[in-house]
Amino acid sequence: MDEQLETLFERTFPFWERLDGSDKEYLMRETTAVSFKKGTNVHDGSVCTGVIMVKKGCLRIYLLSEEGKEITLYRLFSGDMCMLSASCVLQSITFDVFVDSEEDCECVVVRGGAFNTITEKYHEAKIFALETALGRFSDVMWVMQQILFMSLDKRLAIFLLDEASKLGSDTIKLTHEQIAKYMGSAREVVSRMLKYFVSEGMISSSRSGGIKLLDKARLRKLTL
Amino acid sequence: MDEQLETLFERTFPFWERLDGSDKEYLMRETTAVSFKKGTNVHDGSVCTGVIMVKKGCLRIYLLSEEGKEITLYRLFSGDMCMLSASCVLQSITFDVFVDSEEDCECVVVRGGAFNTITEKYHEAKIFALETALGRFSDVMWVMQQILFMSLDKRLAIFLLDEASKLGSDTIKLTHEQIAKYMGSAREVVSRMLKYFVSEGMISSSRSGGIKLLDKARLRKLTL
Repeated sequence: MDEQLETLFERTFPFWERLDGSDKEYLMRETTAVSFKKGTNVHDGSVCTGVIMVKKGCLRIYLLSEEGKEITLYRLFSGDMCMLSASCVLQSITFDVFVDSEEDCECVVVRGGAFNTITEKYHEAKIFALETALGRFSDVMWVMQQILFMSLDKRLAIFLLDEASKLGSDTIKLTHEQIAKYMGSAREVVSRMLKYFVSEGMISSSRSGGIKLLDKARLRKLTL
Repeated sequence: MDEQLETLFERTFPFWERLDGSDKEYLMRETTAVSFKKGTNVHDGSVCTGVIMVKKGCLRIYLLSEEGKEITLYRLFSGDMCMLSASCVLQSITFDVFVDSEEDCECVVVRGGAFNTITEKYHEAKIFALETALGRFSDVMWVMQQILFMSLDKRLAIFLLDEASKLGSDTIKLTHEQIAKYMGSAREVVSRMLKYFVSEGMISSSRSGGIKLLDKARLRKLTL
């Protein structure tokens, strides 16, 4: 484990080579390997879970309202790092996000307090932490513009094309409920739009087979 | 001007005392005093305007869609600093914001390239720039949650109480159109809700006098 972990840290942290030997050891000692089954809540904003690094699988970062409404902000894949789950490291982050595993995941989690100690000691580590978090600001602004400014047909077409290209398949096995959740919309609204796409021959939709993209050229036209 | 500017920088930049004398002079030389009349577009995202520091007045930072819809993200007042208008300093910011003066404003603008040179030379300056930008991330998330999750009556009550407390007056001289714009909503929707507030005796509204808060206790109840 230790050698693997060191390789992971070396690859992920641009400041790794700057650390004293004892600080390297400290950070590795304060890191735990964790597996999450698909659909587990990994972080709920109530405590500082720590810096989560994804080795395998996919984590979904989202906002959750008191009424249970969700907005997906972004997803993290192999090699990505979640700073927003380490609220004790970044004082300037005053909002809570939720993190769920969307697939079976293998992660390592660096304890927040330990990561914080390193960022306080090494400017390079602090700059890396801030830049990582700030990079997600741009992702979130993109989502916000999608939701606030775009008409639903456009948003839905983008979502379906994105999913298809991510999966490398034209069949998307998600329910209307799930799609609505990911898009931060209501199921009724999404179902109505999907029905319209079906009636226009752009997709087919069935309870068992999910959604199949039939006319990607026309879907792409909608996204312009 | 120079002594005043040095005092302003000293007060604003926690890293000021770390800079070499020649770097202090460089940064002051690359800074311009600018006045903006109320309602001027100060920054439109197309160029790196630089780091804007507000000495007097109020700047509004907002998103603008292709269709002309606006969402107010936050406002900057005397002593505040705008990093998002200096896209050339922060590589991790990939979205464009717009900045307008909401009152007659006195500002100083540090040329983006010069500020960048300093942040590349001094870690403390880079950390300050990143932390300033990241602090706004939290503001923006707050706006996002307001818009996405809250019912309009709650949002409108919060907006009116916030404005009143900011102005130190119970009379808010904004049109329905302006309120809708600030809230990222449609005028019709806001007008309907204001009419409801009037009918409930919580506010009065007139074309000439603007909106007057009559029952702040009830408005506050709506915000809970």
